[in-house]
Amino acid sequence: MQGVGTRRLGELARLVEGQLEGEPATPIRGLASLEQAETGDLSFVTGPKYRTAAEQSRASAFLAPPGLELPGRPVIRVADPFLAVARLLPLFHPEPWPAPGVHPTAVLAESARVARDASVMACAVVGAGSVVESRAVLHPHVVVGERCRVGEGSVLHPHVVLRADVDVGRRVVIHAGSVLGADGFGYVFDGTHHQKIPQVGRVVVEDDVEIGANVTIDRATLGATVIGRGTKIDNLVQIGHNTVVGADTIIVAQTGIAGSCRIGSRVVLGGQVGVADHVTIGDGAQVGSQSGVHRDVAPGGAALGTPAIPAAAARRTMAALPRLPGLLRAVRTLERRVAELARRLGDDGGR
Amino acid sequence: MQGVGTRRLGELARLVEGQLEGEPATPIRGLASLEQAETGDLSFVTGPKYRTAAEQSRASAFLAPPGLELPGRPVIRVADPFLAVARLLPLFHPEPWPAPGVHPTAVLAESARVARDASVMACAVVGAGSVVESRAVLHPHVVVGERCRVGEGSVLHPHVVLRADVDVGRRVVIHAGSVLGADGFGYVFDGTHHQKIPQVGRVVVEDDVEIGANVTIDRATLGATVIGRGTKIDNLVQIGHNTVVGADTIIVAQTGIAGSCRIGSRVVLGGQVGVADHVTIGDGAQVGSQSGVHRDVAPGGAALGTPAIPAAAARRTMAALPRLPGLLRAVRTLERRVAELARRLGDDGGR
Amino acid sequence: MQGVGTRRLGELARLVEGQLEGEPATPIRGLASLEQAETGDLSFVTGPKYRTAAEQSRASAFLAPPGLELPGRPVIRVADPFLAVARLLPLFHPEPWPAPGVHPTAVLAESARVARDASVMACAVVGAGSVVESRAVLHPHVVVGERCRVGEGSVLHPHVVLRADVDVGRRVVIHAGSVLGADGFGYVFDGTHHQKIPQVGRVVVEDDVEIGANVTIDRATLGATVIGRGTKIDNLVQIGHNTVVGADTIIVAQTGIAGSCRIGSRVVLGGQVGVADHVTIGDGAQVGSQSGVHRDVAPGGAALGTPAIPAAAARRTMAALPRLPGLLRAVRTLERRVAELARRLGDDGGR
Repeated sequence: MQGVGTRRLGELARLVEGQLEGEPATPIRGLASLEQAETGDLSFVTGPKYRTAAEQSRASAFLAPPGLELPGRPVIRVADPFLAVARLLPLFHPEPWPAPGVHPTAVLAESARVARDASVMACAVVGAGSVVESRAVLHPHVVVGERCRVGEGSVLHPHVVLRADVDVGRRVVIHAGSVLGADGFGYVFDGTHHQKIPQVGRVVVEDDVEIGANVTIDRATLGATVIGRGTKIDNLVQIGHNTVVGADTIIVAQTGIAGSCRIGSRVVLGGQVGVADHVTIGDGAQVGSQSGVHRDVAPGGAALGTPAIPAAAARRTMAALPRLPGLLRAVRTLERRVAELARRLGDDGGR
Repeated sequence: MQGVGTRRLGELARLVEGQLEGEPATPIRGLASLEQAETGDLSFVTGPKYRTAAEQSRASAFLAPPGLELPGRPVIRVADPFLAVARLLPLFHPEPWPAPGVHPTAVLAESARVARDASVMACAVVGAGSVVESRAVLHPHVVVGERCRVGEGSVLHPHVVLRADVDVGRRVVIHAGSVLGADGFGYVFDGTHHQKIPQVGRVVVEDDVEIGANVTIDRATLGATVIGRGTKIDNLVQIGHNTVVGADTIIVAQTGIAGSCRIGSRVVLGGQVGVADHVTIGDGAQVGSQSGVHRDVAPGGAALGTPAIPAAAARRTMAALPRLPGLLRAVRTLERRVAELARRLGDDGGR
Repeated sequence: MQGVGTRRLGELARLVEGQLEGEPATPIRGLASLEQAETGDLSFVTGPKYRTAAEQSRASAFLAPPGLELPGRPVIRVADPFLAVARLLPLFHPEPWPAPGVHPTAVLAESARVARDASVMACAVVGAGSVVESRAVLHPHVVVGERCRVGEGSVLHPHVVLRADVDVGRRVVIHAGSVLGADGFGYVFDGTHHQKIPQVGRVVVEDDVEIGANVTIDRATLGATVIGRGTKIDNLVQIGHNTVVGADTIIVAQTGIAGSCRIGSRVVLGGQVGVADHVTIGDGAQVGSQSGVHRDVAPGGAALGTPAIPAAAARRTMAALPRLPGLLRAVRTLERRVAELARRLGDDGGR
């Protein structure tokens, strides 16, 4: 199906640096999953277990890895079909950048500075001493508090709050409803009440970070809570005060990191993980979902379970667990048999 | 106590199709729990364990199941007293529907279409190409992005965000702060950085769904994330991209469902459950709170634990767990006794 | 380094009622951690394990407990250095109270009453029948619904929602994005669909409570959900309908409490804890992080694990768990040896 936005298969193969097996002039209208693809769509096969689905698909062509044969169907060979999809999607779904300018309903403090080519949309607020840099986008109802920075080309989705003293780098994306810079959770019990420790530190979000929806990242007590360059954070994650996260780390949804932690670079924390305060997780470490991490994890380590232990040991324990009730019975049987044998030998076990 | 909104007990019995044991003219002013009820209130007894509390209650009458005797007190007999409460509450607490119209502070895109009898309240935003149908209500500060639909009679509470391409059916309720249509969490590691996979799919919420506060439901990569008709979702739940949830399913607070899952109809997921990506949970299955589901659950199945296994087996394991330290000691004792017996038999166990 | 806001060490010692060892005229410009302190900063040492860091610090003086020697360095002796920090921080980081008045973009219902010296900031909304008391602060985009109260000196950060019938006491702080008064999660299954039980009760937040960001606290079905005086709640916590929390309790991030619970005073719930409905947790009890509490916890008790049991027993179980796979092997070995011994004795174990 030809039309606006239709591309030729040969052009797409070149864009992803793939090898084309098929007719380069084949028109491609869009990308779709194997099940949902129609004539005119390019689909993708990530492994042999999807071969049957591919054969039954109505797609006009496929992105597929070397060795995965689809006789009679046009294929673009690429090492990683999903990476190719990531590259081609913007072609068919161009996201128009919002028009620059400040919406008349936006509220800017006198001392706020907003770049001419930034977009400040309906009802957005920019507080005293804050800076919105070139091509940054504040979606409707974003609230930027005092002494914040929104770096070049960063996008804050609706209802994002930067409370105060939050520094957001360049090309950062923060999804709707996330709150950066709320007070850390710090009290001292004076014998009668919990006295609040004022939280006067900052939040620093480095370049190319992406933060999901309804996330909370607290400001430091003193100093800074830091999210390192290129790190990606999923929805509903909590990051406590003074925690420092390295670069290119992945934090999956609903994970909570307490205060004063050191999370390395290229770490992967699964979903619903809890990390206790002052814990260090080394570069490249991986923590399985729902784990509770109370001790440091070495660089490159894998941790799992509550409390988290090395993942291989945790998996053995988890696999053994359902056998525990049977084990209890087996040991009771053994005790009876040993007592019986001892009786026969005239041995009362010293009792 | 008679007054505005006072009803007669006989009328209430008819409304819930119950059998009245007592004076139909008894005036009833409101509903209250056994402890908080005053003269003039109708209360409810759900089972025999609340009989003493009922006897001590000041309520003027009771909704009670057959067989639960309360001598000398007026009773409306119904099979399910709580269902009767649900039916009678709106009578005493009528929730006035907001007046139709668009508040002067609301911001509507030129291409947005809002029904004449819809309510668009203070500072609400409706983006390009979006539709707000008849009698729908956008509470203050709701942000409806581009190409969305808010179906007939649906209510979006304050600060709800429909990011883009979100289709909300009829009579849907979404509580405050929830975000539908944020980007799914999808990246491909290119060897150096995490490359974002553009998320260009939709979210579809079918009729009669209710969604709690500060929930996040991500848009699909391609295709749609779907919440089926009549499903009820509690607060702070996360639903990943491309996941499809069936009809009349219950998802309790803080549960997280990863991407590309298939959750059936009439499923119950307890609180703080985690479901790994690509998992299928069959119709009518039940998953216990805090479980971590990594494998499919059959229709009608019950799963529990991390990793989740059939609930009966998981309960046996959980009951046995506190006996593990004692078991370790018992086995050490056995090993000593067996070694001793072997020595007496002149057997060294092959060692 | 002297300047605006510089204080003398002697003055600071007096303010925290500490004993000064050093020159009272020493100028102090601010507070900083041991690592980040520069000349002119006062730092703090909470225990002997930080002595080396203190000796290497560039701080001009230290808050330190009795007995912790730092030869040649000025020290203010205090029993609890962190409590002293909490008291001194506001001195160096005064938080200016917002100017009173109603911003022109705020939207007030006719029947709303706002004290003259309250602050209602940009785009804030106050609904019908609601009251904002003296010196209360509604940050930008706060939505106060119908029949609510915001008590004297309380601060609601951006995007906080009080849905309806929410009573907030005095000196309460609610951080950004939190939702109080959304409907509780209550349905009755009528055999076909989940019928909603109308939620018409209230939320009561007593004086001096602090609530984190993106928290959800549901209104009661009937009666009230209550947060007791001085209680502190961290980010992303869920509190169900009709639950009553006592005074001076601590609830750490991402914990979820179901409906109709009774949580005592001075309780501590760790992070990511789940509490099932109708559970009572007694005064002063402590629950370890990620626990799942299904049964009552006695006053002063300590609970841990899923399902939660007394903490000491749970710790023994957790410590024993990694030994389970080895135990399975040991028991199999024992069974073989016992069978062998029995054979030698001519005993077939009754089989």
